[in-house]
Amino acid sequence: MDDLLTYADVVAASDRIAPYVHRTPILRSAFFDALFDAEVYFKCEHLQRIGAFKARGATNAVLMLDDASAARGVVTHSSGNHAQALAWAASRRGITATIVMPHTTPQVKVDAVKSYGGLIVFCEPTLSAREQAVADIVAQTGAHEVHPSNDLRVIAGQGTAALELLQDVPNLDVLMAPVGGGGLMAGCALAARTLLPSMTVYGAEPETAADAAESLATGVLQPPPNTSTIADGLRTALGTNTFALLQSLNVGILTASEASIRQCFRHVLERMKQLVEPSATVTLGALMERPGIVAGKRVGIILCGGNVDVDRLPL
Amino acid sequence: MDDLLTYADVVAASDRIAPYVHRTPILRSAFFDALFDAEVYFKCEHLQRIGAFKARGATNAVLMLDDASAARGVVTHSSGNHAQALAWAASRRGITATIVMPHTTPQVKVDAVKSYGGLIVFCEPTLSAREQAVADIVAQTGAHEVHPSNDLRVIAGQGTAALELLQDVPNLDVLMAPVGGGGLMAGCALAARTLLPSMTVYGAEPETAADAAESLATGVLQPPPNTSTIADGLRTALGTNTFALLQSLNVGILTASEASIRQCFRHVLERMKQLVEPSATVTLGALMERPGIVAGKRVGIILCGGNVDVDRLPL
Repeated sequence: MDDLLTYADVVAASDRIAPYVHRTPILRSAFFDALFDAEVYFKCEHLQRIGAFKARGATNAVLMLDDASAARGVVTHSSGNHAQALAWAASRRGITATIVMPHTTPQVKVDAVKSYGGLIVFCEPTLSAREQAVADIVAQTGAHEVHPSNDLRVIAGQGTAALELLQDVPNLDVLMAPVGGGGLMAGCALAARTLLPSMTVYGAEPETAADAAESLATGVLQPPPNTSTIADGLRTALGTNTFALLQSLNVGILTASEASIRQCFRHVLERMKQLVEPSATVTLGALMERPGIVAGKRVGIILCGGNVDVDRLPL
Repeated sequence: MDDLLTYADVVAASDRIAPYVHRTPILRSAFFDALFDAEVYFKCEHLQRIGAFKARGATNAVLMLDDASAARGVVTHSSGNHAQALAWAASRRGITATIVMPHTTPQVKVDAVKSYGGLIVFCEPTLSAREQAVADIVAQTGAHEVHPSNDLRVIAGQGTAALELLQDVPNLDVLMAPVGGGGLMAGCALAARTLLPSMTVYGAEPETAADAAESLATGVLQPPPNTSTIADGLRTALGTNTFALLQSLNVGILTASEASIRQCFRHVLERMKQLVEPSATVTLGALMERPGIVAGKRVGIILCGGNVDVDRLPL
């Protein structure tokens, strides 16, 4: 377990991806400081390339391929930010990214991947159909699969968000990030635990999709939830690697109701003037439901992404 | 004319207000760089205290009062960001701000002023009624009037936004800001012209409220426009001081259609993930309508504010 991924992998990822991704700014908010009676530092990954932290992990994975492997391209199944991120990262290296998507994917997400030069292969909207489609492409083209969250190179890349945050704000007491597949949280927890072992690390997920909380509580990896949530980026389940890392790094999980997620989405837009995804306000909703939980603390929060349909804002 | 206001006044304002206002960040946008074929630097005054640059000028005016004058309080007529800014600045000094507002002012704006501790006096929705109400309050209380845009202390304070931008990005070719009453543009032009005399300085206003363009073209100060615009912060006319400064500082005015203002509001939200007022996207709309006008240039743009009703976004 100790060798699954190390802090050195996160540092190496940071050096590797630095020429390609943004070192995103950190924002403060008098409103949230008062709401949580804390000093809150927001790491703005919604201002990252492609509008989400996913650019970090995808870039790290693509850059780690040797030339022969890279030449055969990369493939993944995703209709979310990872799809855009992998297409973008591949185009930066001049290689092909094939993205498997359910044919039910909204056109706006299809267009976004196309705009970054990704090739799209549609499939039935089931996990087995997606996995089969990826396997077929790998067999046909020799393309290299880059899983959205369970890939160790991806996890190391996502951890660079916390690395930067802790370089800029070295004495945080608490670090929080949302948990879907767990790649962001695992990578960030690894960076945080190494730099500040005593730090409290919380993942956050919707209470209607609390599979990570249940996996960690029971010690048994739970399947993806069937329920829906406004935080649609967090509907995926942990993978074997992210589960193992969250266990060993002692990450606590807090949940947030749909109402809290929505209310904090509004606060972030209205008070901070930032457009983020509902997935990014699950952390804030979880804190809002637990008055005093971070009182007097210095809290770092990863605002994970900002790709939301502006014609359908959850206000 | 040369003595109306000097660069030294802007520098003094900067030192004076620094402990109170934010040094706002500067954002870039790959989208707008490509759209304008330029390097665009956005000075984020929507992230300023009270959500707009107005905090700068109001703070400067309030801090410049001697103790005896300050003790009698300040007064203004405004239903916009200056009302909130003056209430906030006065509360920071521990003095009273009385804000004259038409009784037709939306409740959200009334509440915002109250939240900063401002006293509100309602009047009929005409300019003469507003001015009479202010005169009455001055007569009754000895309060000191702080005009939203034509007050020289206010203009000096607003200029600190450009001063900071030029400190952070010293070699801009073009500076742009929206023009309503002209306080922001006058102060910023003064800073820009002194630091970089060869710089091009453009104000921007809605084509349906192009009184500043007409005032400068005719040499005669025009009255406020009767027409409406989505950029509701820009419906005011220049004052004697701002008119004189824009003339002497050789500020060009570009106009933008309502459609362009709206389209750029959407782009800023969708691409930059920033919530700004339509008044802040008039500059961008004006550039969008003039392809090539800033091609190859380094362009600084003041995003003036972000106070917009999130339930009525102009999308």
